[in-house]
Amino acid sequence: MRSPQDSHTPPDPVDPMDRTRFPVDEWRLVETSPNRADLGRTETLFAVGNGYLGMRGNPEEGRESFAHGTFVNGFHETWPIRHAEEAYGFARVGQTIVNAPDTKVLKLYVDDEPINIPVADLEEYERSLDFRDGVLRRHLVWRTPAGKTVRIDTTRMVSMTERHLAVMTMDVTLLDADAPVVISSQILNRQDGEDEYHVRSAAQGLDPRRADGLDRRVLEPQMNWTKGLRAMLGFRASESGMTLTVGIDHIIETENDSESLIMSEDDVAKVIFRVRAERGKPIRLVKYAAYHTSRTVPVRELIDRVRRTLDRALVTGVAEYRAAQRDWYGGFWADADVVVGADPAVQQAVRWNLFELAQASALSQTYGIPAKGVTGSGYSGHYFWDAEIYVLPFLTYTMPEVARSALRFRYLMLDNARRRADEMSTRGALFPWRTINGEEASAYYAAGTAQYHIDADIAYALNRYVEASGDVDFLLREGIDVLVETARMWADLGFWTDNGEAVFHIHAVTGPDEYTTVVNDNLFTNVMARHNLWLAEDAVATLATAWPEAYERMAKRLGLREDEVEEWRRCADHILIPFDDHIGVHPQDAHFLDREVWDLDATPSDRFPLMLHYHPLVLYRFQVLKQADVVLAMLLQGDQFPLEQKRADFEYYDPITTGDSTLSSVVQAIIAAEVGYQELALRYFFGGLFVDLADRHGNTSDGVHVASTGGVWLALTAGFAGMRDHHGELSFDPRLPAQWDSMRFRLRRRGGSIAVELSREALTVSMLDGTYETFLVRGERYEVCPECRSVRVPLADQGPVVPGPVPPQTVIGVRRDGSRITAGVPGTFPGSLHQPVGQ
Amino acid sequence: MRSPQDSHTPPDPVDPMDRTRFPVDEWRLVETSPNRADLGRTETLFAVGNGYLGMRGNPEEGRESFAHGTFVNGFHETWPIRHAEEAYGFARVGQTIVNAPDTKVLKLYVDDEPINIPVADLEEYERSLDFRDGVLRRHLVWRTPAGKTVRIDTTRMVSMTERHLAVMTMDVTLLDADAPVVISSQILNRQDGEDEYHVRSAAQGLDPRRADGLDRRVLEPQMNWTKGLRAMLGFRASESGMTLTVGIDHIIETENDSESLIMSEDDVAKVIFRVRAERGKPIRLVKYAAYHTSRTVPVRELIDRVRRTLDRALVTGVAEYRAAQRDWYGGFWADADVVVGADPAVQQAVRWNLFELAQASALSQTYGIPAKGVTGSGYSGHYFWDAEIYVLPFLTYTMPEVARSALRFRYLMLDNARRRADEMSTRGALFPWRTINGEEASAYYAAGTAQYHIDADIAYALNRYVEASGDVDFLLREGIDVLVETARMWADLGFWTDNGEAVFHIHAVTGPDEYTTVVNDNLFTNVMARHNLWLAEDAVATLATAWPEAYERMAKRLGLREDEVEEWRRCADHILIPFDDHIGVHPQDAHFLDREVWDLDATPSDRFPLMLHYHPLVLYRFQVLKQADVVLAMLLQGDQFPLEQKRADFEYYDPITTGDSTLSSVVQAIIAAEVGYQELALRYFFGGLFVDLADRHGNTSDGVHVASTGGVWLALTAGFAGMRDHHGELSFDPRLPAQWDSMRFRLRRRGGSIAVELSREALTVSMLDGTYETFLVRGERYEVCPECRSVRVPLADQGPVVPGPVPPQTVIGVRRDGSRITAGVPGTFPGSLHQPVGQ
Repeated sequence: MRSPQDSHTPPDPVDPMDRTRFPVDEWRLVETSPNRADLGRTETLFAVGNGYLGMRGNPEEGRESFAHGTFVNGFHETWPIRHAEEAYGFARVGQTIVNAPDTKVLKLYVDDEPINIPVADLEEYERSLDFRDGVLRRHLVWRTPAGKTVRIDTTRMVSMTERHLAVMTMDVTLLDADAPVVISSQILNRQDGEDEYHVRSAAQGLDPRRADGLDRRVLEPQMNWTKGLRAMLGFRASESGMTLTVGIDHIIETENDSESLIMSEDDVAKVIFRVRAERGKPIRLVKYAAYHTSRTVPVRELIDRVRRTLDRALVTGVAEYRAAQRDWYGGFWADADVVVGADPAVQQAVRWNLFELAQASALSQTYGIPAKGVTGSGYSGHYFWDAEIYVLPFLTYTMPEVARSALRFRYLMLDNARRRADEMSTRGALFPWRTINGEEASAYYAAGTAQYHIDADIAYALNRYVEASGDVDFLLREGIDVLVETARMWADLGFWTDNGEAVFHIHAVTGPDEYTTVVNDNLFTNVMARHNLWLAEDAVATLATAWPEAYERMAKRLGLREDEVEEWRRCADHILIPFDDHIGVHPQDAHFLDREVWDLDATPSDRFPLMLHYHPLVLYRFQVLKQADVVLAMLLQGDQFPLEQKRADFEYYDPITTGDSTLSSVVQAIIAAEVGYQELALRYFFGGLFVDLADRHGNTSDGVHVASTGGVWLALTAGFAGMRDHHGELSFDPRLPAQWDSMRFRLRRRGGSIAVELSREALTVSMLDGTYETFLVRGERYEVCPECRSVRVPLADQGPVVPGPVPPQTVIGVRRDGSRITAGVPGTFPGSLHQPVGQ
Repeated sequence: MRSPQDSHTPPDPVDPMDRTRFPVDEWRLVETSPNRADLGRTETLFAVGNGYLGMRGNPEEGRESFAHGTFVNGFHETWPIRHAEEAYGFARVGQTIVNAPDTKVLKLYVDDEPINIPVADLEEYERSLDFRDGVLRRHLVWRTPAGKTVRIDTTRMVSMTERHLAVMTMDVTLLDADAPVVISSQILNRQDGEDEYHVRSAAQGLDPRRADGLDRRVLEPQMNWTKGLRAMLGFRASESGMTLTVGIDHIIETENDSESLIMSEDDVAKVIFRVRAERGKPIRLVKYAAYHTSRTVPVRELIDRVRRTLDRALVTGVAEYRAAQRDWYGGFWADADVVVGADPAVQQAVRWNLFELAQASALSQTYGIPAKGVTGSGYSGHYFWDAEIYVLPFLTYTMPEVARSALRFRYLMLDNARRRADEMSTRGALFPWRTINGEEASAYYAAGTAQYHIDADIAYALNRYVEASGDVDFLLREGIDVLVETARMWADLGFWTDNGEAVFHIHAVTGPDEYTTVVNDNLFTNVMARHNLWLAEDAVATLATAWPEAYERMAKRLGLREDEVEEWRRCADHILIPFDDHIGVHPQDAHFLDREVWDLDATPSDRFPLMLHYHPLVLYRFQVLKQADVVLAMLLQGDQFPLEQKRADFEYYDPITTGDSTLSSVVQAIIAAEVGYQELALRYFFGGLFVDLADRHGNTSDGVHVASTGGVWLALTAGFAGMRDHHGELSFDPRLPAQWDSMRFRLRRRGGSIAVELSREALTVSMLDGTYETFLVRGERYEVCPECRSVRVPLADQGPVVPGPVPPQTVIGVRRDGSRITAGVPGTFPGSLHQPVGQ
């Protein structure tokens, strides 16, 4: 599944996909032949969803699959986490997204013979997912075992206008003979039924990226009901108590003789259509499925909701939903598309990534954005910092209303975070590293709870949203509480030393890189905590000045004292930012440079990702990174570091970064571009662009790497367009790849909208909507407004290119045979195919 | 259960026991009235065992208990450790000592009324455990519900001459009336039966010192058999596959009419005696119980072994076993007794501790010495470094043959340790931190596997044994393999830096103190690793020179190269010994002094032990110790540090050491004595002396703290007699407590034996047996031999007493209110009752 360079070497910047099977199409993902060998990957790639409801790309027939999956964001079961050795404060409540009852099932029989794609005699096959309307389509011409040919066309969409609704169609026509046709449309509770799904999870138990404490019945049947062509099942998750009701209804259109049967049991409901199909007379079946879930409402109430959704669907009809869906995506692409003057294969991949961002987040509303969106059960459906750092930037500039709801979701779990802070012996609020219901669920604290930076990540995303959207109302009413409580946490977590100079430290935390854990003064954590403290102080000051009433309410609500705010400023101003004068780089943590350097040259290629082949203690002993850490800080807090420093840090860390996490390459791409490693930037960009499309990490079957899809947008805008927005001010310093002609995208800002167009010669910014926008291009200030609609800024070049040879190499380790390990040549790993820029 | 000063303040040096209930007796532990409230504690204190077989002090009637426990050393069940989040190399095989079938049960009925101690109307009650013969005796006069008085005397002993055998007696006499008497003698498999035992374990699940993965049937019945007055049951532990057969046989002596019945089922066998007892006519029942276990032999073979043991017992008889037992203990006390010229209560407590050392180890033979001996299931019956560092010194000087077998036990698990080293990516052998069967069982690696020092601890104990015993044969044949493989591990684990000076580092390990984990260059680990490397190099050199054939065999067997040995020397000579010039102390690890200082003054007394009230991440962030770490290094590697340095280190660490581990206070006592805190030494000694007798840590119910009992001997010999044996040379630098007149003890050395007698005025060493012995007293060399049998060395004093006031305090932290936290005043915790010496 995984080739060596996938894990720790940036790939060649070439299209890695099999274009015979997946031909290039700038607006669709198309598959021209089925392949049993990568069921899991294609189930993920062809999944449809709206951020609330998601359906994996399983075939209508059911049958063979990696995992039949239907997911409702936040619909989860809980279980007591049993630690092999307990300790105080360890996470207690396991949370796992539940595989919701499957309504995708439309089993087709001709002459009582079922169709099974992997072995069927198919004269025609095409499966496609259209980014313009979010509809999954499949076209087959099947030669049945009896030698009859049948045309079968199916569609599946999850509505972007009604989040509880999925719409499916099946068209069947006998082409050259008559035959009895049966379609069995089902609701099937696979979570508790016989399904290979759980077996597979258990077999993969060693991989810490999967966790599942459920080997028992999860969904207690509460109700099953049928009438006409409508069926409903109701369930209650036995430990979490969450309820779910799912219903299906149908319309059949055919001139053939037909009849229907309906039945339901606890875990299955079936509506069976028996048709005496005559040659050339089409059968069309429309299936609506509705899902409603709740934490508090009983199944009997959800029934009414499902009924209303289905009733409306029957009245509305497929055509109208399809049109609405196309409109919705039209609006989405108007705001979110990034058009690249590059190979159409790149354009296709870019759009697939952006499309997945829509599918992961659009209607998530009061829920968070899970690491896999609603496309798979990887990471148990949990919410991580992925949303704040990788997805929120995209949402902030393309779908700010979705950004807002994702941030409100954090606000809504503030009370949980307060309790957790108390349990962890600090004031304020400590957000869980991973969670569904607001409680910390990270069973391995060293790479979980210890990642205190989650607090600062949330504050960072929140501030960015408020600045970009101008949504002060959100800040006044809710956001301020998050800023204050997280700042309190930092001020209490750290401590002071004074050896002539007062210094504020934060100890025993883990940064983004999980190959060293529980360290002191992690640079990323400290700069992000500083930012958090500054933000809170600024926000409080702004309230006190501009909205004194809101300030009074807040101060009372939070028991805020003035000296607290002063203390935040003091902590922030004196926090340690570790720097090594000798080699001129920022250590990842206070003692990172004391570590032995991992010898990647001597690491067999089958030992990646390292975490699956070395005990954590072994990894922690070395300078070796799972993912960008200091380098990510150079992006998020880029205004705090000069370019030369970013370059030195990038040059130091890049050769010891494995990229074992998909969160890494997109960040490496951005900083590589900024500091002048342009070709390397493109390689890392390709790494991120095809994470799932080429299954680079071997686990796309578990779901889309949503953070990486957000990272692709970041790599395009922040990387190649060199866009930054420190302190709410937009700036650009373009780095268009040498192989590309142009790039354009739009940004929504403060109720308005601008277009950014980048060519090799110029950057053009146009106002589409709104009143006024200023921005910097390479330090010069420009503005656009309704009267000055467009500004074209000529570009002499596309930023620095590090002149060869690369800077003097730093010896960062000695092998046992006496040979030297050096930093300073980014990307030069064993088996690496590229040469450093300039050579 | 626990009062504040128990956890972190050395106690007043006064007898803490309730002498109304437990009167002082220098040779016995005596209880004069039963108390339902401390069943668990007294079950442990009155347990009998021989290092192989152990029986808790449950009453013969069964009934109420904390835990009915019978333990056979090494007889364990295995289970897959299920980690809440898995990772490569995490311990896989859980191991738990099995509660063996209970043969203690002798249920007595008079007029069909059972006796139940807590509610019985008792005219007389005494329970005693005699240190001179290891016999548990109970005397009762019971007034039955019918108003009849009955005298009941029982005894219980586990043989020190036949390790599979227990001998019990019950004497019953009706004193004032006739009555039917029934005695039901049983074998009862409580492990799988209905028993509060497991319920209690589960309820205490949070305490990481208890672990138990067994909530299912463990012992599969293989056989039950009866004949005459003999019954046998055979079992197989379902996962480990270990087998056990237990048998009982009886002799009844009475002039009353009597008959017997016998029955057996899977989990129980009963031999029932019905006696028509007449007033004044005694009934005597003798019960023999035999336990045989195996890893490989089936139950049917064990049956024969049990039969042979029981047959021999019947022939031998109680009187002879009792006499042999008294002889055995006579020999033990001749070698092992420490006679203190102090309060008889102290003498009694000293003897109870030494007696427990015999009970924990004497016949352990091919098994290790569990943390709780065979007195309880605490720590799941696992073997830790406790044996090597706390118990082996005692065994080496009093029962060297037992020391040898305990070390051979480690040699026998060398192959497991080699495999574990490979899994942990190092060469050589890495011994498990906790284990029964040789596989690592520490489910929390940070305070488990990371304690690499286990390798050096074993090498240390091994060398000490070889030097003290002169058992070169063991070194040549087996010991050398352990030294070489552990040295290899260290050389490969560490790494070099060279900033002008080559320095060898060991990173990401945990020292003895578990309140900081996964640190770099832990001082204890580094000095012990250095010792290990030196020992291996010396041993290899000695072999090459003196036993070239043994050397050749070894080099071939282990594939040893000469350059490896040179490398060991180089690593050892250049290993980092962290030292802070500024405050003049050795940091516990490279970055220990960078940490915030825990404010013990501000810690509520109900928050001890800290580990049960703070998340590990919180503890790891601070300078706060669970147990002596640097201070222990000052004992074990005391020749490497000058006295002034030891004092400075003691003064720094003592105020931040909670003593939450029972391994701490005995070590603190020794170094306090050495550096001049004499009164504090006595306080810490009392802390250790009464760990179990006064249940100072609230968990004596789980079993005897065997390491602490060994520590008591160490505190007496190394602490108050100031004995050291660096490089095999005995030395004394006495520190007799001001409150004591004298102390005497014996030491076995190189096949001979010496007596050491310490008074306030002199130290006298006498040769009892052997040829020659030299020793140092305060730097002067002396000798004893058959011709120069005794040397009296006058003493001007009992060592330095730190003159008051104590040394300038070092500010080691600042509280949030600005007040200072200082080191330099040992033992001054909140609630501490003592003043530093000299004030």
